[in-house]
Amino acid sequence: MDPVKTLVRDIPDFPKVGIVFKDITPVLGHAAAFEACIEGMAGVSRIHAPTRILGIESRGFLFGTPVAARLALPFAPVRKPGKLPHKTYRIDYDLEYGKDSLEIHVDAIERGDRVVIIDDVLATGGTAEAASRLVESQGGEVAAIVVLIELAALGAASRLAPRPVHSLLRY
Amino acid sequence: MDPVKTLVRDIPDFPKVGIVFKDITPVLGHAAAFEACIEGMAGVSRIHAPTRILGIESRGFLFGTPVAARLALPFAPVRKPGKLPHKTYRIDYDLEYGKDSLEIHVDAIERGDRVVIIDDVLATGGTAEAASRLVESQGGEVAAIVVLIELAALGAASRLAPRPVHSLLRY
Repeated sequence: MDPVKTLVRDIPDFPKVGIVFKDITPVLGHAAAFEACIEGMAGVSRIHAPTRILGIESRGFLFGTPVAARLALPFAPVRKPGKLPHKTYRIDYDLEYGKDSLEIHVDAIERGDRVVIIDDVLATGGTAEAASRLVESQGGEVAAIVVLIELAALGAASRLAPRPVHSLLRY
Repeated sequence: MDPVKTLVRDIPDFPKVGIVFKDITPVLGHAAAFEACIEGMAGVSRIHAPTRILGIESRGFLFGTPVAARLALPFAPVRKPGKLPHKTYRIDYDLEYGKDSLEIHVDAIERGDRVVIIDDVLATGGTAEAASRLVESQGGEVAAIVVLIELAALGAASRLAPRPVHSLLRY
């Protein structure tokens, strides 16, 4: 198997019964594997000529800022409500069971920005779609959504189309 | 004034009345300033010959993984209770009003590790001290605590002594 993939740890019944959680902390704990991930995520981002990197709270931060630093691009965080201290735009979106919300600072995106959105895992794509809409509502374009892990059977890439989606590891 | 310091934004009464919050998101949004911060934090870390970088949830993640990548070192996250999916060690600690807790995965630290702990802001030092104790309880040594911003009047450096503390911006 792909040596990075062997580091991803399945955690059954987390955060709730019936979900098998993909734990990426062993990847972070292996310097060469983490370097390969950052280089891979930066590489697939680069071909879309981005002007800004967005990271989704909070595991998206772990990959987002190293990719931004690698590409010498500005970074902006997308966070759960109440976490960002300045004025924000907010989006509410539906989950499988219930609702959730995301916020971004009002000065995070400039009109015409080509934004790469970074997260660790792409499952149903609900969070990535909400982050995309936040970007687009401010006149930015989603240049690509780039994740370490894609749970391909859940169909997020179709849901997010025509926005390009890249994942380094597919399940 | 120091050009990076001009990017740090004061937010009055966040997260509660009477606190002036240091908002570092404009630093993240300025690629050259962020690069200077990562290079500075990596530089002061390097002299302590660390073997591992720890980042404290969640703004510590924003600086921790780029520093780890820059130094080609493994990274481990320290998180609030219930967020880490694998087995954890936990520490409870006192805040000015109330209590809080931090967790780290049981396999995050190896005996003999020289650990640099990264966060965005050092205020009273309670969180950094708790993270230090987690490291030390597992046979690691805190090589240094490295932050972007230190609120020097609050005395965290004395509280954390003899562990070395480095900050790039002091208030």
